[in-house]
Amino acid sequence: MKAEIITIGDEIIHGEILDNNSAYIGEKLSESGLEIIFKTSVGDDVKRITEAIRLSLERADLVIATGGLGPTNDDLTKKAIVKAFKRNLVFHEDILKKVEEGFKRRGIKMPKINQNQALLPQGAKALPNQYGSAPGIFLQEGKKLFFALPGVPLEMRTIMENEILPFLKTKVMSKVVIQKILRTTGIIESALYVNIEPLLKTKSPVKIAFLPGYSGVDLKLRVTSESEDLARLNIQEFEKKLREMFNEYIYGEDKKTIEEVVGEKLMSKRKTISVAESCTAGLICAKFTNVPGSSNYFMSGITTYSNKAKIELLKIPEEIIEEYGAVSEQVAILMAEGVRKLIRTDYGLSATGIAGPTGGTEEKPVGLVYLGFAHENDSFAQKFIFGGDRQAIRERTIQAALNLIRLFMEYGAPHN
Amino acid sequence: MKAEIITIGDEIIHGEILDNNSAYIGEKLSESGLEIIFKTSVGDDVKRITEAIRLSLERADLVIATGGLGPTNDDLTKKAIVKAFKRNLVFHEDILKKVEEGFKRRGIKMPKINQNQALLPQGAKALPNQYGSAPGIFLQEGKKLFFALPGVPLEMRTIMENEILPFLKTKVMSKVVIQKILRTTGIIESALYVNIEPLLKTKSPVKIAFLPGYSGVDLKLRVTSESEDLARLNIQEFEKKLREMFNEYIYGEDKKTIEEVVGEKLMSKRKTISVAESCTAGLICAKFTNVPGSSNYFMSGITTYSNKAKIELLKIPEEIIEEYGAVSEQVAILMAEGVRKLIRTDYGLSATGIAGPTGGTEEKPVGLVYLGFAHENDSFAQKFIFGGDRQAIRERTIQAALNLIRLFMEYGAPHN
Repeated sequence: MKAEIITIGDEIIHGEILDNNSAYIGEKLSESGLEIIFKTSVGDDVKRITEAIRLSLERADLVIATGGLGPTNDDLTKKAIVKAFKRNLVFHEDILKKVEEGFKRRGIKMPKINQNQALLPQGAKALPNQYGSAPGIFLQEGKKLFFALPGVPLEMRTIMENEILPFLKTKVMSKVVIQKILRTTGIIESALYVNIEPLLKTKSPVKIAFLPGYSGVDLKLRVTSESEDLARLNIQEFEKKLREMFNEYIYGEDKKTIEEVVGEKLMSKRKTISVAESCTAGLICAKFTNVPGSSNYFMSGITTYSNKAKIELLKIPEEIIEEYGAVSEQVAILMAEGVRKLIRTDYGLSATGIAGPTGGTEEKPVGLVYLGFAHENDSFAQKFIFGGDRQAIRERTIQAALNLIRLFMEYGAPHN
Repeated sequence: MKAEIITIGDEIIHGEILDNNSAYIGEKLSESGLEIIFKTSVGDDVKRITEAIRLSLERADLVIATGGLGPTNDDLTKKAIVKAFKRNLVFHEDILKKVEEGFKRRGIKMPKINQNQALLPQGAKALPNQYGSAPGIFLQEGKKLFFALPGVPLEMRTIMENEILPFLKTKVMSKVVIQKILRTTGIIESALYVNIEPLLKTKSPVKIAFLPGYSGVDLKLRVTSESEDLARLNIQEFEKKLREMFNEYIYGEDKKTIEEVVGEKLMSKRKTISVAESCTAGLICAKFTNVPGSSNYFMSGITTYSNKAKIELLKIPEEIIEEYGAVSEQVAILMAEGVRKLIRTDYGLSATGIAGPTGGTEEKPVGLVYLGFAHENDSFAQKFIFGGDRQAIRERTIQAALNLIRLFMEYGAPHN
């Protein structure tokens, strides 16, 4: 079954926003076993949106369009649908009620313009939108399936997950697609590649994609097959070979995040942790608390951005900072010990480094980061030099900090 | 002049990577005064790439394609160009030399496959690529201009900047495009729209785009004109009218962030600030420290995720938390006062709320947030109910917290 994605909005073709929506839809449709043939983006122009919809219906069996359904942009997408499908707009009393209720709940007076959202093309089914006022639209003509969704990412994703993907599961799938992601960190893409390359030359039906990011390289394994059992077996065999080579670097599978992995370990061993941050300034803390239930093990985080705060809150001797500098092994260890003592947790973690763009020297370049870790019996620090800009250095630091805890809890303290 | 952008690669249509390239090209072309009519993405399939190129040449005057030029992906883009333009591939000795030299400089032996990069469609001009081995391609047929660039972002951008944009300046531009963004927060899109709508019906040549995000709605003004002076005057007049209506909600212009605006205010008034966070768990802190030089006014941030930490570190009486709950006006004020006293800063800011997905009740729903603020003379709290999921609620809280400081420093404490 061939699919096409259409994203609508001047802000997309002018490059004012990144087209995350089509990436998300592309991922979900290919996971569902559909073949995506084109993605088209078009601005806020009824004639061109109409042209894009007509063309997509000629070449694809299923089309998902996003954007242009809000009340303010004059409902261009609905106008284009009406033209492309040669249908009229019909008013739906029940939709208006839902829109009105939504505004009431938030205590906001509904602007009159939002009444337009109760108009749907004739024969269309409304797809409920729990986070916004514009419902999604589903139309069928012959064998062609057409969906239009709002462009707000949260609203679009929720309608995809609640309505479209379950529908596709029953209606569309013929071949089985099995995917598995192995998430690695602490090893660069080309080092993975040279080791995996020989595997790619065997006759395994497993395809592998390397997806690098600041948090590491995800290895995406994928098999398309008539038999689910066979596909699973193929993936298993391939995974086994990868784990033989890289097990220490693989922190999780699929969508699992490193903060979830570390959180589970802390929970199961009943350990608590606190964090003292300098260059990451609260981001490690925010990462930990991404996980529901993290208040069971994550106690507190302190950002000691200034030396004053390091000295006063964490009781680091001023002389140590003067002698070794705030970005040093010594200060990293004392920060970890200091926060562990202050918050009275089992573990204390710290990060101090130079995220740039300024502040680097020959001896201590931008990207230099020390992570400190204190536990019941001892403490240690690890040194890293990360590449990239400020954001990249911060994100790599966060990932390395969580990975340090993971490795400590799995393999013990590092040997230097 | 009408333009179309084509991005080529399975990883794009499968959503494995974000299509940053087309956003960049879109931005540059629209700044150059071109009208972008479509963006098309297509996978690694010669037939479909050919179809996309043919279609783009029918409807646009200028086409820029990226991706599929590397040696490993079997040169699909060149094959498709050859088919779409009905031309042959021609070998270029001078290009081969350059490719070979590039490998020599990096001390790497050239794989034989890279010889293919010396093949160009007949009549094509090679565009030098200083960061990679695949040159860009320029073809002209009648009045139609066609460019193909490598997909590696750094290589694509460099060729755009060195070759294509200067070329467009001499060849294409006749009109001036002036843009200005006014960034608002604290007001919803449709409320802006209903007030701005009458302006849109006047004969002003200014076009306006509404760009909503978690941090607020950006209003992008844009004029295309023969005269730069006239365009600037048009923008100024339009901006004046918008400021008459919404000045309090406009926190900055163009790429300016609210943390920069607040940072500048704190710097110029020589005030220092510290933060106590609960639901945002370090993210307000991280936002502040996004700004280079923030250590001059941002002293420290404390995440008191647990009640224990609120009681022990911020000295909030346990009875208050028991009586009013951790998410309450009272606790927000005491957190702000507590962190201000502990870190000894001029201002103390706090955020406590229910970011969800769980933890909400009838009385205190998910999305309920109290922000607290303590200054030299007094303290106060403000209540918000934010929509969306955990991430949206957190990001809206951060923005509202920074906006609260901005408003306090500009207009004083709020009247309840």
